[in-house]
Amino acid sequence: MLEESFAVRFYETDALKHVSNTVLVGWFEAARFPIFKLFTPDLDLDNWPLILANYSVDFLQQIYMGSDVTVKTGVSRIGNSSFVVYQELWQDAKLKATGSTTMVHFDYKTQRSAPISAQIRDKLSAMLVETQSE
Amino acid sequence: MLEESFAVRFYETDALKHVSNTVLVGWFEAARFPIFKLFTPDLDLDNWPLILANYSVDFLQQIYMGSDVTVKTGVSRIGNSSFVVYQELWQDAKLKATGSTTMVHFDYKTQRSAPISAQIRDKLSAMLVETQSE
Amino acid sequence: MLEESFAVRFYETDALKHVSNTVLVGWFEAARFPIFKLFTPDLDLDNWPLILANYSVDFLQQIYMGSDVTVKTGVSRIGNSSFVVYQELWQDAKLKATGSTTMVHFDYKTQRSAPISAQIRDKLSAMLVETQSE
Amino acid sequence: MLEESFAVRFYETDALKHVSNTVLVGWFEAARFPIFKLFTPDLDLDNWPLILANYSVDFLQQIYMGSDVTVKTGVSRIGNSSFVVYQELWQDAKLKATGSTTMVHFDYKTQRSAPISAQIRDKLSAMLVETQSE
Repeated sequence: MLEESFAVRFYETDALKHVSNTVLVGWFEAARFPIFKLFTPDLDLDNWPLILANYSVDFLQQIYMGSDVTVKTGVSRIGNSSFVVYQELWQDAKLKATGSTTMVHFDYKTQRSAPISAQIRDKLSAMLVETQSE
Repeated sequence: MLEESFAVRFYETDALKHVSNTVLVGWFEAARFPIFKLFTPDLDLDNWPLILANYSVDFLQQIYMGSDVTVKTGVSRIGNSSFVVYQELWQDAKLKATGSTTMVHFDYKTQRSAPISAQIRDKLSAMLVETQSE
Repeated sequence: MLEESFAVRFYETDALKHVSNTVLVGWFEAARFPIFKLFTPDLDLDNWPLILANYSVDFLQQIYMGSDVTVKTGVSRIGNSSFVVYQELWQDAKLKATGSTTMVHFDYKTQRSAPISAQIRDKLSAMLVETQSE
Repeated sequence: MLEESFAVRFYETDALKHVSNTVLVGWFEAARFPIFKLFTPDLDLDNWPLILANYSVDFLQQIYMGSDVTVKTGVSRIGNSSFVVYQELWQDAKLKATGSTTMVHFDYKTQRSAPISAQIRDKLSAMLVETQSE
């Protein structure tokens, strides 16, 4: 799986003294960046090829400031025009949260979902992981 | 359902010119505030009685700046010590997104989940809604 | 002065149990929205006419969850192509913070600062306030 | 000066396709973390020794996604109980923004500002930089 580490920022905590639940989808988005680049290597904002259709996050343990978090990113399912990214958030060698995000390949010209090309499909397939939650 | 409206803030948009997907869980959290107050009317941060176990958001249509969004909040399921909050995000009379959040009633003294009292259960029951997605 | 109220959102607090200092510039931006609309009534993102050149915020007292904050917005100085927005953040009848933001009127076609029109200047002048900090 | 790099996150951009002005104070806070640790090596949230009294940010050029930003952090002034942190934000070898943040050493027991110890003063002095803006 891809790995990306983040230092916990002070403003990402909340009044319960741990990381706010709202922060995780931002870290997960940042960790999906290599997948965005598969679809749009030049990050062309005017022809953005992916739409986020759903995300779901399971919170297993509290996340605190003081040590970095690592997000591991893989792919758990590949459909015709959509795929599911599976992500794990680790801190201090503990699995703190998991997330699944359904992305749809989209053609802005026709304003419709579009099949994933064979070339990108191969690259996504190389990232396939087995998950218990899927 | 409870209703809470939010003006879209400029910094809540992203480079695709619509609202970032990361913003919705913050709006949903803010709109659940009346439910937090059921459990802790004085908002006692040292004995916070609810843990967020999961959230899942379905994104149906893009959300833009320019008109307010309204979050409607109900309860879709009540268990022994947990319950699911169901929320809809509307803008310009269109359903833009739905979310389900599983909350666990928690006793910080014993560090365990704890049954929901009959009194609070009654209030949650009064907020029950039928949803197609549950 | 213009007035805009905001409920404090839980994720806007930090581990010190009060509102994170990073939140205020977002509230101030949101409260400047009527000024943005003076310059671009249709909010045309492709010809955005204002550049933020500086902000400065004085933090006077801690801000907490539990009661709304109100941002009062006026104009403290008007130059040829720039102006300064002065803002006060009140909570529970106490002045919690003040902010000054320097905005530059910008012409995207020429990529240069541009004089403020007489029409807009009149509207900004109507918002002039005296401040001790300027 | 201390140096800390950040990847620009997609949700940190706004509808003008560059980084939102509201993001910078968060990056600057994160980059001040080594200074927080000087005052509270164990990050004791119940006796937090620093209060932010003011921040001011000058925006010199637009910041974009696509390459990392680096925040350089030094100290521009040391008073009896307060000091000013000076920070520069660089991207692609260009100075994009500068910030000055006034921090006050605070004693939570007496609820008053407190002199900075000789030991910490020495460490802050080692971080002194000359700035044109001070």
